[in-house]
Amino acid sequence: MQRFFDAHRAMLDGALKAVAERTYWSAAPEVPSGKIYGETAKADAEAAFKAYIGKPFEMDHPGGRRLGKEESPWGFALGITYPSASVDELIAASRRAATGWASASVEVRVGVCLEIVHRLNRQSFLIANAVQHTSGQPFVMAFQAGGPHAQDRALEAVAYAYQEMAKVPAKARWEKPQGGGQEPLRMDKQWRIVPRGIAVTIGCSTFPTWNSYPGMFASLATGNTVIVKPHPGAILPLAITVRICRDVLKEAGFDPNVVLLGVDEATAPISKDLVKHPNVAIVDFTGSPAFGRWVRDNAARGAQVYTEEAGVNSIVIDSASSFQGMCSNIAFSLALYSGQMCTAPQNIFVPRAGIDTDEGHKSFDEVARGIAGAVEKLVGKPDRAAALLGTLQSEATAARVKTVSEKAKPLLASKPYEVAGSPGARTATPAIFVAEAGDPSLYGEEQFGPISFVVATANTREAIDKAVELARTKGAITGSIYSTNEAVLDEAADRFAAAGVNLSCNLTGGIFVNQSAAFSDYHVSGANPAGNACLTDAAFVANRFRAVGIRRPAAA
Amino acid sequence: MQRFFDAHRAMLDGALKAVAERTYWSAAPEVPSGKIYGETAKADAEAAFKAYIGKPFEMDHPGGRRLGKEESPWGFALGITYPSASVDELIAASRRAATGWASASVEVRVGVCLEIVHRLNRQSFLIANAVQHTSGQPFVMAFQAGGPHAQDRALEAVAYAYQEMAKVPAKARWEKPQGGGQEPLRMDKQWRIVPRGIAVTIGCSTFPTWNSYPGMFASLATGNTVIVKPHPGAILPLAITVRICRDVLKEAGFDPNVVLLGVDEATAPISKDLVKHPNVAIVDFTGSPAFGRWVRDNAARGAQVYTEEAGVNSIVIDSASSFQGMCSNIAFSLALYSGQMCTAPQNIFVPRAGIDTDEGHKSFDEVARGIAGAVEKLVGKPDRAAALLGTLQSEATAARVKTVSEKAKPLLASKPYEVAGSPGARTATPAIFVAEAGDPSLYGEEQFGPISFVVATANTREAIDKAVELARTKGAITGSIYSTNEAVLDEAADRFAAAGVNLSCNLTGGIFVNQSAAFSDYHVSGANPAGNACLTDAAFVANRFRAVGIRRPAAA
Repeated sequence: MQRFFDAHRAMLDGALKAVAERTYWSAAPEVPSGKIYGETAKADAEAAFKAYIGKPFEMDHPGGRRLGKEESPWGFALGITYPSASVDELIAASRRAATGWASASVEVRVGVCLEIVHRLNRQSFLIANAVQHTSGQPFVMAFQAGGPHAQDRALEAVAYAYQEMAKVPAKARWEKPQGGGQEPLRMDKQWRIVPRGIAVTIGCSTFPTWNSYPGMFASLATGNTVIVKPHPGAILPLAITVRICRDVLKEAGFDPNVVLLGVDEATAPISKDLVKHPNVAIVDFTGSPAFGRWVRDNAARGAQVYTEEAGVNSIVIDSASSFQGMCSNIAFSLALYSGQMCTAPQNIFVPRAGIDTDEGHKSFDEVARGIAGAVEKLVGKPDRAAALLGTLQSEATAARVKTVSEKAKPLLASKPYEVAGSPGARTATPAIFVAEAGDPSLYGEEQFGPISFVVATANTREAIDKAVELARTKGAITGSIYSTNEAVLDEAADRFAAAGVNLSCNLTGGIFVNQSAAFSDYHVSGANPAGNACLTDAAFVANRFRAVGIRRPAAA
Repeated sequence: MQRFFDAHRAMLDGALKAVAERTYWSAAPEVPSGKIYGETAKADAEAAFKAYIGKPFEMDHPGGRRLGKEESPWGFALGITYPSASVDELIAASRRAATGWASASVEVRVGVCLEIVHRLNRQSFLIANAVQHTSGQPFVMAFQAGGPHAQDRALEAVAYAYQEMAKVPAKARWEKPQGGGQEPLRMDKQWRIVPRGIAVTIGCSTFPTWNSYPGMFASLATGNTVIVKPHPGAILPLAITVRICRDVLKEAGFDPNVVLLGVDEATAPISKDLVKHPNVAIVDFTGSPAFGRWVRDNAARGAQVYTEEAGVNSIVIDSASSFQGMCSNIAFSLALYSGQMCTAPQNIFVPRAGIDTDEGHKSFDEVARGIAGAVEKLVGKPDRAAALLGTLQSEATAARVKTVSEKAKPLLASKPYEVAGSPGARTATPAIFVAEAGDPSLYGEEQFGPISFVVATANTREAIDKAVELARTKGAITGSIYSTNEAVLDEAADRFAAAGVNLSCNLTGGIFVNQSAAFSDYHVSGANPAGNACLTDAAFVANRFRAVGIRRPAAA
């Protein structure tokens, strides 16, 4: 059963080369084009998605009941129900499936993973619809981030897993010279890759596929069985994914329960019972710091826990070689998916005395207004706003915009905007506030959603200090700085790196601090409270399996 | 300051090749020969060691007081005192030393590590004396395990660290094609290796260097500062080691406090305060499961913890192609360093109905007596006994031999033996007992020291079941099986591997189950309670540092 591995060998080799060089590479075209994905792919997927609405999701899967209460942030209930098994049923089915999967060769397992990635790619339009109507992302983003970019992250994890497993030789002849003309000691040794056990992947509501795939595929490739626990508000994208996994597993002769879907409801969550279960050996978690901490503290003894939690991302403005370019770039970063990306900036630290720019000196107020104006321009037209901002995934985010607006000093007020054809869409344009560095009561906490602060600091040094301090105490996934002074950029690079923050410098064009490219950017450093792991590096996969040796004296 | 790296490049390359192939390789000759280490090396080291006795150990090191109450298990007090700093002083000094070390290049840091390994090798005779008179090992073993073999394990860790760090490219040009005849998006990216912080290595009393070096060197090479916390009964080998580390660091222009010695006394231990300290980011621990569990549960939030704890190692006897060879081989394994190796077998499971051998059928009693007789023969002469058994490191082990002897059914009684010239040596020949598989009250727990059990089972299947069950519940580092039946060997391989136990098959010659060869055998699987980590594999080093990126638009 090595045909999948052979079929996708070139894709794997491309990924292996890419993760080593970390230059640009992608296996999955990001353009939602009929020329690439088939002329009818878009319409077919939309029809398929519509056919799901209000019906039981068809899937041969353990579990006697059906659950599901997803609502599209674009304004309608999905009304889809999914097979739901108890924690005990999930664990039992996963354990039964384990032996066959664990004893498959590395190539067979990796081949199955590659085939799954390949089939996910063919369903990119379907997954785009599913992601759009659970996360609330705009369609193109749902296609790219939920489809090809997520598939690339999956492939990246498979490549690392293959690389790490391939490092363990299958066998070796050990021959130790002996003194005094004696024959050498000779041993024949073999090593087996032994998986950890059951892996649980806990998904989030904003990036249900992108954030779940790395852990899922890293665990799967290394021989573990996987239980995918979607956020109760974003089940469909992972249900489609799990169904594809199960199809491929079955075709390859494995028990499809190697990958299971653990569906629950917000009122009766199963995540805690899964995480604490003594048979669970690996947990991949994306979600809030509060629950992340609970997972880290309560996972079964000895379980490996990989988290992406959250943080407070900052931009530091020291000076600008293109004031307009800077303002536009920042505005786009604030607007994209209404600030609901883990990589989106929240705080923009600006010296109180203003900054030097290509347009001359700009006061603090001029900088703040420049950014606010660029946001207004960007989201001024409703159709453009919808395509950029999307919708708010949860009511809690909408409420947060209101609460913060009542407390903070306004710079740009948030307001709902109309989405043509989606009357119930939950929308809000970006809210921007001004703050003083000395009062971190609001900007000093994560304010998830379309909420940002232009924060006045004594100088650039204090701006960097505040950004780095927040990264160390609250976590940060991204940082950004604008400066025409190389010494300032160097200092920022040192300081942000030491705090485990990936830094972007002087972004003014078509790259935004929010973007994290598979095969090139390490997503999350694992070195501050925003998460304890990186998607994806060697450390993310190397401990998901163990090597066990068998040795015997060699025949003479 | 890359001269150390350049000087030892061939040694590093040899180690990198060896860990990939896992065939026989060694950088440090294990023969305690004057031809290799210098004709006067042995005598010089003995004189140097004697000169330490009863005096303050000379070392420029933080700490206002002096501590040290080591006693040689060979029968005399060392009376050496060491500089001792408080936990706060150690942490403060370590933090001050951190920045310079973290910002050194990978090559410079790895070069410093290689130079330290090289200098440790030149001091192998001195370290042998120090290990002998703290662990109680016989001299040749103290030389080999404490010197060259430990140095090889250190080098192995450095090689993995180099390999993992080298995987992260220093920089890359990212160039993403754009459609419609537009210029590609171009970014220049750099990545920095960022260490975790302060690493604490907690040493043990039986293998003070061998078990400490992998964690120490893995942390050091990856840019962390290291506090070495020796067992209060085995300080000298690590004090010599740390002094060499500090000498090399100083010569290379670094703050010597990059490596510190945390000396304490049994009555006022500092390990817990170190492990809990919020600045401690990595803990490497070798010791008891009880304290190991405490360390795992109480290490500072987010700290990486790597443990080697303990377990119950088993031999399963199904049948034998050389009954004498088997008995001799097992006897040697039981006798070597009086069973005080973490790899030494404790339980020998034998079918109650006996086994088939090259000498015909042997009853259970004949097998038990065969092994006991081989032990008696091996340790019958006091001078040979001393060279093989060494002494008992602690009074607790001596007491355990007595306690178990009062409860268990005797097969071979333990007795003290005389060591010429060492009247106070703490000695005991191996005690062997017989037991029934159904009564695990004694054999089912780790009985550390020269204590073993020949356990009667219903059949080979039950023997494997019991061995594997103990591995899963109590941990096991090694397993061993004797069988002339390939199907039995295959089943054992599957079962032991699934329980994370490295298995040796049919050892009858000059290789013993206790032996774990650097660059070839992965020591501890990390997949059962005997330890959560392996010395050394990629997973042991890959998470001791993080990669952080800095990106900016490329100049056109």
